[in-house]
Amino acid sequence: MSITASTTKYEKIYSREKNKVEKKLNGLLKGKQPKSLYEPCDYIISSGGKRIRAMLILLSAKAVGAVYSSAYNAAAAVEILHNFTLVHDDIMDNADKRRGMPTLHIKYDLSTAILAGDNLIAIAYDNLLKDSPLNAKRVLQTFTQGIMEVCEGQSYDKEFEVKRKVTIDDYILMITKKTAALAEMCCSIGAQIGGGSASEINMLKKYGLNLGIAFQLQDDLLDIMGDEEEFGKKVGGDLIEGKKTYLFLRALEKSKGENRRALEAVIANKGIRKNQVKKYKNIYDELDVINDTAKQVTAYTAKALRSIKKVKDDEAREMFTWLANSLLKRKK
Amino acid sequence: MSITASTTKYEKIYSREKNKVEKKLNGLLKGKQPKSLYEPCDYIISSGGKRIRAMLILLSAKAVGAVYSSAYNAAAAVEILHNFTLVHDDIMDNADKRRGMPTLHIKYDLSTAILAGDNLIAIAYDNLLKDSPLNAKRVLQTFTQGIMEVCEGQSYDKEFEVKRKVTIDDYILMITKKTAALAEMCCSIGAQIGGGSASEINMLKKYGLNLGIAFQLQDDLLDIMGDEEEFGKKVGGDLIEGKKTYLFLRALEKSKGENRRALEAVIANKGIRKNQVKKYKNIYDELDVINDTAKQVTAYTAKALRSIKKVKDDEAREMFTWLANSLLKRKK
Repeated sequence: MSITASTTKYEKIYSREKNKVEKKLNGLLKGKQPKSLYEPCDYIISSGGKRIRAMLILLSAKAVGAVYSSAYNAAAAVEILHNFTLVHDDIMDNADKRRGMPTLHIKYDLSTAILAGDNLIAIAYDNLLKDSPLNAKRVLQTFTQGIMEVCEGQSYDKEFEVKRKVTIDDYILMITKKTAALAEMCCSIGAQIGGGSASEINMLKKYGLNLGIAFQLQDDLLDIMGDEEEFGKKVGGDLIEGKKTYLFLRALEKSKGENRRALEAVIANKGIRKNQVKKYKNIYDELDVINDTAKQVTAYTAKALRSIKKVKDDEAREMFTWLANSLLKRKK
Repeated sequence: MSITASTTKYEKIYSREKNKVEKKLNGLLKGKQPKSLYEPCDYIISSGGKRIRAMLILLSAKAVGAVYSSAYNAAAAVEILHNFTLVHDDIMDNADKRRGMPTLHIKYDLSTAILAGDNLIAIAYDNLLKDSPLNAKRVLQTFTQGIMEVCEGQSYDKEFEVKRKVTIDDYILMITKKTAALAEMCCSIGAQIGGGSASEINMLKKYGLNLGIAFQLQDDLLDIMGDEEEFGKKVGGDLIEGKKTYLFLRALEKSKGENRRALEAVIANKGIRKNQVKKYKNIYDELDVINDTAKQVTAYTAKALRSIKKVKDDEAREMFTWLANSLLKRKK
């Protein structure tokens, strides 16, 4: 089978299962009262996205021998939870657009966005409970732990915005909590709902965790590498906003003299001007940090792939492999 | 036994059990990282309050034959959940003080307050899970339902601020969701954790629901009746802010001519000036709505008391009775 043919096969499965989750999400809140609460909740959960977290749940259930349909509600739950984080993060980041649409606090108002986000947490639990086994305690504990880690990660992220000295280890801890913990949680919950053994749950958790870290590092890379039109957001946005990304921290670590002073100025000035992006991209090139980051992405992806080698279900294992490789090659 | 002696007995039990919950709450988040997240969370959950919701959990567990200590974590959980609602409501209401201290978004900032509130929801679930039976599903569903109702109630409340026509039924629905549903949830969860039967759970839920409605109507009354110094907030604050309370809506319903025009002006102008409070209190007196509201408080309290008549545990039944009567007589 050629690479193209198998890609199509996996894309088809992804798309088929994604549509099942979409359908569940789209029908969930229609007509619920009060409209002032449920319309904004519906606005965000129906606004699309890759639904990768839902897929991690479904594939993890499949990996331990269950059918996809055993975890559709749980898959919807993690997407709802992810959307809650987007709504509240967009307030904190003063973001006015998301997926090409106005963010919730812009379309409605601050109070509505806070309240809709809160309600989404409860709606997420409500859906998770529908797919949880009678002995639901551990599933719920895993989910709850995931929410706390996301909050902790977001808190570190906000902290790092104003903190002058942030190490690469600090940064990895932050993205582990803010992004990777949720992916790890998805794999754990899918495997638990599917009835997996402790060792099966553990290997799938490792996949989610490492995939999540690779995903975020790739995001950092794409910000400076991306094609402005294809990527959909401005190139070098992280530098403009003065974000301490992996690339930036690695550059700072390797730099001396003039380059170091230029990088320290980004911290002192809390960002750069748009017309300075090219200059900083040159510094990144000179210090070879784009390559360093790409190597990290490859290493974390390889780690993720190693951990699912023993997955017995062929389709799940192949889908996990395809998914990790697709994310590695993604342009946005 | 004289009334005074028995009051002291109940007060002692309340105070003893409240202290157990306080101790749990105070030790919960100390030293947790990141400080930028857990310090504000600790600030609000350690800031006191009556802890009535915790008491409803404990008494409901006792009422069905369990010991208080079976539900301390769950009791802490509902207080944490209640504090989450305070943090986010204070943002929405632009409130700068709470229990005589700066509100969280004033002491820290908006992002911190949003994030701390979010984290408190997860911390609440985390604590609830500690006291949940192995088959925790129904307890978790009840808790989740409670959060959704609180969000719905808050949403109606914000809606009513700008809606011209609000009926007394609308208002009762709003306070049922915003305040009473949580009290109902506490009684249900306490009884479930205590291993109560379906009929025991139901009668305790009715107590919580009716007590919650009585409590909120009493709050509306105290706003206009309260002694400024004793009550701790300005008398007539609801009128000044143009809130459509039970008193206001009842007055509107009964009024004609000049009084009606004066009341409609409150809606049109979204409130009154501080020096107009006396004028409106006179309208309330003329229309006898203070008496109407007091009657409702008594009626809901009586309903609450009727529903716990069959509670077999003497201490729990007596405590429930004392609690309802104390709230009826409260001045703040």
